[in-house]
Amino acid sequence: MHNKYIFSNIIGTFVFNEHFNIIKSKLFTNKEQYNNKEKFEKEFLKKYSDLKKPEGKELKRILNSFKSNEFHKEFRKKNIELSKKLVKESVNDDNFVIQTVSNIEELDKVINMLVKRLREWFSLNNPELSHEIFDNEEFINQINKKTKKKDSMGADLKKSDLEPILKLTKQVQELFELRKKQNEYLEKLMKSNYPNLQAVAGTNIAAKMLARAGSLRRLMEFPSSTIQLLGAEKSFFRHLKTQSRSPKYGYLLQHPIIAQAKKSIHGKIARAIASKISIAVKVDYFKGKFVGDKLRKGLEEKFQ
Amino acid sequence: MHNKYIFSNIIGTFVFNEHFNIIKSKLFTNKEQYNNKEKFEKEFLKKYSDLKKPEGKELKRILNSFKSNEFHKEFRKKNIELSKKLVKESVNDDNFVIQTVSNIEELDKVINMLVKRLREWFSLNNPELSHEIFDNEEFINQINKKTKKKDSMGADLKKSDLEPILKLTKQVQELFELRKKQNEYLEKLMKSNYPNLQAVAGTNIAAKMLARAGSLRRLMEFPSSTIQLLGAEKSFFRHLKTQSRSPKYGYLLQHPIIAQAKKSIHGKIARAIASKISIAVKVDYFKGKFVGDKLRKGLEEKFQ
Repeated sequence: MHNKYIFSNIIGTFVFNEHFNIIKSKLFTNKEQYNNKEKFEKEFLKKYSDLKKPEGKELKRILNSFKSNEFHKEFRKKNIELSKKLVKESVNDDNFVIQTVSNIEELDKVINMLVKRLREWFSLNNPELSHEIFDNEEFINQINKKTKKKDSMGADLKKSDLEPILKLTKQVQELFELRKKQNEYLEKLMKSNYPNLQAVAGTNIAAKMLARAGSLRRLMEFPSSTIQLLGAEKSFFRHLKTQSRSPKYGYLLQHPIIAQAKKSIHGKIARAIASKISIAVKVDYFKGKFVGDKLRKGLEEKFQ
Repeated sequence: MHNKYIFSNIIGTFVFNEHFNIIKSKLFTNKEQYNNKEKFEKEFLKKYSDLKKPEGKELKRILNSFKSNEFHKEFRKKNIELSKKLVKESVNDDNFVIQTVSNIEELDKVINMLVKRLREWFSLNNPELSHEIFDNEEFINQINKKTKKKDSMGADLKKSDLEPILKLTKQVQELFELRKKQNEYLEKLMKSNYPNLQAVAGTNIAAKMLARAGSLRRLMEFPSSTIQLLGAEKSFFRHLKTQSRSPKYGYLLQHPIIAQAKKSIHGKIARAIASKISIAVKVDYFKGKFVGDKLRKGLEEKFQ
């Protein structure tokens, strides 16, 4: 039997004769042709009646014939193109969540640094204000209102000395605004991509867990007990090293159901929430239908 | 001789008889009256012919008579008022410089944090840009231009995913802008209040030295050798503790005359600049006339 072989790779579709020499080929010029290689294979199959797919030893010989220099260059080029495409396609919603969570954390740090500075600087003008108002955002908003007390210890600043303070204040206000906007964006991302996780854990906890795990897939693979302790890594490792008590919850401490409950049952609730989150994540990963509200309700009825 | 005594303190002006009882008084109702106490004393002097200022034992008895509860309250109140006034007046240009220097340093940190974040986040869209452009400000400006290469590995982001990135970018651009404005303000402050120091050391070094010293007065009291090492405290103390080499300059390393010179004479130039700065600071403190340009020129001619 004198078989001919048909074989496709990233470079093109080839027809080999029984001596494993190429007798016909279609070289791909772009990635779309590679993706539609079946089309070209069909055309060849029509033309040659005795084509078969190589197997075992035949496949080995065909693969060997691609080792020549001529093909090597082409392979390299096509492979880089393909890798680029895969990298490009690997960006998904997990990445956006992780970036946004990190950014919100960074914004918090930045805002704290600048408000600290403003508290010190503005105290030259109005030292009483910083002592009266502990909340950073309210403090910033009060600076602009210029409600300085008549017997304030603060100096009366020239306009040119007050101006840089007010400019910094405005900047910090905008940073607060940006933080809110990023939070809204995060909420939207979570609700549309991880509806079940979001419903059970809430936007912030859900996003932090996702960021810590690195991807929805990895979070899904965590056992419920790991989910329960996410965010408590530090005290957990301290527990392993020394004889300190094991932590009962990490990010989950901020969960409203836990925050409202007695401290003595915090650990118990954390375990229950973690197990529901574990379910929710799996449903999200496999694009199941929305059950987040039921899971959440079950928890609320049990513990509230 | 039956002397009467006249005595003023922060509460008022008093006339005492020979038994050290108050026979006449003018209580001050505000700080301005206290500052003009000579006026009231004159009036009393006209009225009573035999008034004298108490001395020695007489003064002691008069001071004792103010120990009563009635005066105590009044003293406390007036003293607080006076202290407030002194605190208020203690705010001077040194404070503005110190605050501005700290703020610029803080802004640098903040900008670095946020640009780092942006480099990571924007790489989802255009990973090549961050590798091509090292300068933070230029990188930020390029983000807006959207000059993405056709074969970029970056994903094509939806508008809603790109928006938060661009908002953060805008914020960072404004922070860069604010930093420039604060620098201009600092330059103006330095030139108008410390013209000699500014001329010899340059705005940045001068302001940092002032901030490190805490005030112009303290900077003036530093010997030239301390000025030379300002900003090198860490390695200086390491030198004292271990056998490491003594530092030759701190902030002064950034001085253009040193930056342009061979490394072997850096120490020598730093010593010369420090001694001129020491002169300039004294002239500024005692509000002498402007000699900064001459001092600077002398240095430049010697070392350039």
